[in-house]
Amino acid sequence: MDIVPSFLKAGKIVIDLSADYRLPPEVYKIWYGVEHKDKENLSKAVYGLPELYYDAIKKAKLIANPGCYPTSVILGIAPMLKEKAIDLDRVIVDSKSGVTGAGRKPDLALSYCEVNENLKAYKVNEHQHSPEINKILSEVSGKAVNIVFTPHLVPMNRGILSTIYLHLNKKLDTKLVLEMYKDFYKGKPFVRISDEGKFPQVKDVVRTNYCNIGLKVTGDTLIVVSCIDNLTKGAAGQAVQNMNIICGFDENEGLL
Amino acid sequence: MDIVPSFLKAGKIVIDLSADYRLPPEVYKIWYGVEHKDKENLSKAVYGLPELYYDAIKKAKLIANPGCYPTSVILGIAPMLKEKAIDLDRVIVDSKSGVTGAGRKPDLALSYCEVNENLKAYKVNEHQHSPEINKILSEVSGKAVNIVFTPHLVPMNRGILSTIYLHLNKKLDTKLVLEMYKDFYKGKPFVRISDEGKFPQVKDVVRTNYCNIGLKVTGDTLIVVSCIDNLTKGAAGQAVQNMNIICGFDENEGLL
Amino acid sequence: MDIVPSFLKAGKIVIDLSADYRLPPEVYKIWYGVEHKDKENLSKAVYGLPELYYDAIKKAKLIANPGCYPTSVILGIAPMLKEKAIDLDRVIVDSKSGVTGAGRKPDLALSYCEVNENLKAYKVNEHQHSPEINKILSEVSGKAVNIVFTPHLVPMNRGILSTIYLHLNKKLDTKLVLEMYKDFYKGKPFVRISDEGKFPQVKDVVRTNYCNIGLKVTGDTLIVVSCIDNLTKGAAGQAVQNMNIICGFDENEGLL
Amino acid sequence: MDIVPSFLKAGKIVIDLSADYRLPPEVYKIWYGVEHKDKENLSKAVYGLPELYYDAIKKAKLIANPGCYPTSVILGIAPMLKEKAIDLDRVIVDSKSGVTGAGRKPDLALSYCEVNENLKAYKVNEHQHSPEINKILSEVSGKAVNIVFTPHLVPMNRGILSTIYLHLNKKLDTKLVLEMYKDFYKGKPFVRISDEGKFPQVKDVVRTNYCNIGLKVTGDTLIVVSCIDNLTKGAAGQAVQNMNIICGFDENEGLL
Repeated sequence: MDIVPSFLKAGKIVIDLSADYRLPPEVYKIWYGVEHKDKENLSKAVYGLPELYYDAIKKAKLIANPGCYPTSVILGIAPMLKEKAIDLDRVIVDSKSGVTGAGRKPDLALSYCEVNENLKAYKVNEHQHSPEINKILSEVSGKAVNIVFTPHLVPMNRGILSTIYLHLNKKLDTKLVLEMYKDFYKGKPFVRISDEGKFPQVKDVVRTNYCNIGLKVTGDTLIVVSCIDNLTKGAAGQAVQNMNIICGFDENEGLL
Repeated sequence: MDIVPSFLKAGKIVIDLSADYRLPPEVYKIWYGVEHKDKENLSKAVYGLPELYYDAIKKAKLIANPGCYPTSVILGIAPMLKEKAIDLDRVIVDSKSGVTGAGRKPDLALSYCEVNENLKAYKVNEHQHSPEINKILSEVSGKAVNIVFTPHLVPMNRGILSTIYLHLNKKLDTKLVLEMYKDFYKGKPFVRISDEGKFPQVKDVVRTNYCNIGLKVTGDTLIVVSCIDNLTKGAAGQAVQNMNIICGFDENEGLL
Repeated sequence: MDIVPSFLKAGKIVIDLSADYRLPPEVYKIWYGVEHKDKENLSKAVYGLPELYYDAIKKAKLIANPGCYPTSVILGIAPMLKEKAIDLDRVIVDSKSGVTGAGRKPDLALSYCEVNENLKAYKVNEHQHSPEINKILSEVSGKAVNIVFTPHLVPMNRGILSTIYLHLNKKLDTKLVLEMYKDFYKGKPFVRISDEGKFPQVKDVVRTNYCNIGLKVTGDTLIVVSCIDNLTKGAAGQAVQNMNIICGFDENEGLL
Repeated sequence: MDIVPSFLKAGKIVIDLSADYRLPPEVYKIWYGVEHKDKENLSKAVYGLPELYYDAIKKAKLIANPGCYPTSVILGIAPMLKEKAIDLDRVIVDSKSGVTGAGRKPDLALSYCEVNENLKAYKVNEHQHSPEINKILSEVSGKAVNIVFTPHLVPMNRGILSTIYLHLNKKLDTKLVLEMYKDFYKGKPFVRISDEGKFPQVKDVVRTNYCNIGLKVTGDTLIVVSCIDNLTKGAAGQAVQNMNIICGFDENEGLL
């Protein structure tokens, strides 16, 4: 937010990979600890998740490129919001991330021997991506959504796998829900829905811009597994996808 | 079950690490695919989870040593069952295991390059440990419990971390629930409850017989993180613990 | 060698990634345990290491694509052979490989828990790539070369790093030898020589077709570190490079 | 060296795990960059490698506990020095270490994503353990030894594997050399010599105080593979072993 205004003033289109334009100013302050410095542009920023905001992205001057966890989680839940098929107050998200998600820095907690042969939950229901996910899910559903969210650190370089537990408010089976997801993502080149009985894994998406989603209904619970590469669909790849849309290029130009 | 009867006939006490004496015969057949061959002894077997069945273990001739996932999950939920503080039909368990959990065998799915830099959910809500967990939780609560259970394979040798989502049916906060857990495990040498705001990680328990438990209340959801070494508390270590109890040794003799 | 003759008969150009056309038939039999079935074509095969055999590759109908270890080792030594600057009977090669080098198969020795947190030497001075390396080094130097070769298995998916110890028969310093290597590989797009004091590492070449080489003279010993991705420059990438040369494409077409 | 003198003055026996009492003061200054502050005690320190200095250790007041690389290397070479069977100016050591060898600190080069899926040589022939190895090998052989030494960083937590290339000055075969090693280490509880055709690997020694050694003669080259846990035999375990000797305890008391 320090340099974005000058780019916009110069007539440039900005795709911002930071979290600066993703939250309302008062929420931003709570989670990132500082006052927002560019509220004017913030109000005009478009959330750069093309599977949900394609038309707005096409015309946007300022894109808030989504966080990595939010990308995997929102894509895993959105079709059920559209179908109004789940209880909005019973959304549980258990996410697992590779270590690049934490950024590149000299930090003892990220050193090899601390992470290797280890696994931990962290920022249990207090990760800064929670309000971002809640904001978008609420926007999409038109009602307040407040998820339970536990991120975990896994000893691998790249990848996010989110296991999402939703409570169905209608009688639905796996086949039907799979159809709903396939319909929802029809024509979206970077979302792939797994066949019944199959679930995505990190190595199927790593170094690609894909979000792979598998799911299963058991009783009145829907289990969704959503998987991305946090550095590609969860960051730079999605930024390129947004650029392609804005510039009128093929949506998957330059992307695997 | 092929050799246990002969040991028992010879007057030996048996601690069985297989799954042969953990389930009723009809459930066993469904999950393990074969008819049970020793129904007589099966009906007398004691489930070897000392934190719940200490007195029965003391007098047992045949111990069914618990599975690794069940150990981590049951210990993470049991105090809430005793308190009758949770909805029994809203128990969600998201478990993550190291690779030793799958056993030592030449299997392409367990080869280094398949597991390394990868993460996946598997046997989604159809793992053979589900009925074992349900049986014990139902026994403890006196009512049918039917969990939702998703295991995941994590690129590390040892360790299980289970993240458990419970729905509280009373107004409780983190402090109160921590007290309940501490009370429940008072005098149990191998369960450690983390202080408020802290959560266990695999490296705190690996190569030990401890089960570390941390938790947090958020709204009406209780998030419990329960962590063990699948080869120690989840298998051989717990067998030694059971032996110690049966033989009248110090419960932690020979255990770290 | 079972299907290559039919392709050649049909007028196709063959780039063979197996070891079938790399060794004389009598040596092949010793190391691979079977009689060679296609001696006629074997005698016409060209060794597909473009940095040494470019002109022959251009006109070849059958390419024996080099092994992964040989690629890293031969490229690390060849400039000193041309300069006749080393003792040919004092070549020591200590190579380290990621696990993909062993192929994809259900093999207990390659299972995650056997390889992870482990390191070992294997086939000490009896790896089947030894005769391949010796054959090419002897061809290049015009005299018999017989290296000492110890391969090691390292817990990582991809990459080979070969540390080569050569005995200089002339007074040379690091700067001079670096110049010799840079001259030797002038115009070769996939060999990069590190600056003095710098050495290559696996992550600099992984998923690329580069061979990075760093070196240092200490007394009369030259230490060369040569690093490739075993699956790219050590296998499929080099095959593409050979195809590009044969077909008259840009040498690095389709390669990173 | 800041606090050792006060302990010695108080009549305590000191086993120092730092490098402060391993080198002559002038060499210390070159490699560690500071003037030695306790030359008096330095001259009386005993090098704590029990397999070579048992008698001196027994009576020592100040032990310089060996470095991790030196332990693996010196134990791998010493028998050949005693036999006067190798050329002292042709000793090549290629060592590979896990990441704990670098200490626990927030350092970008040691962060998970830098080390994982990577492999590198570092401090090529300029590691501070070179002079320590040279000093002891020279002491044992009675003549100046000056090794070539390349350490490598391997993505694993613990373990050192040193592959040592020695030039035999007598006609010897593998069997004979194995006998020499077995004789040399007779009665030494923590050195194990592998059978012919077998070589040690890190997982055989990790979390133990053993040094496992395997070897092979090929032509006039002897290849020795020497393997330890850098944190046990290479550090704290060896300190305990020294304490046991000094205090008259069983040499392997408290050690695995």
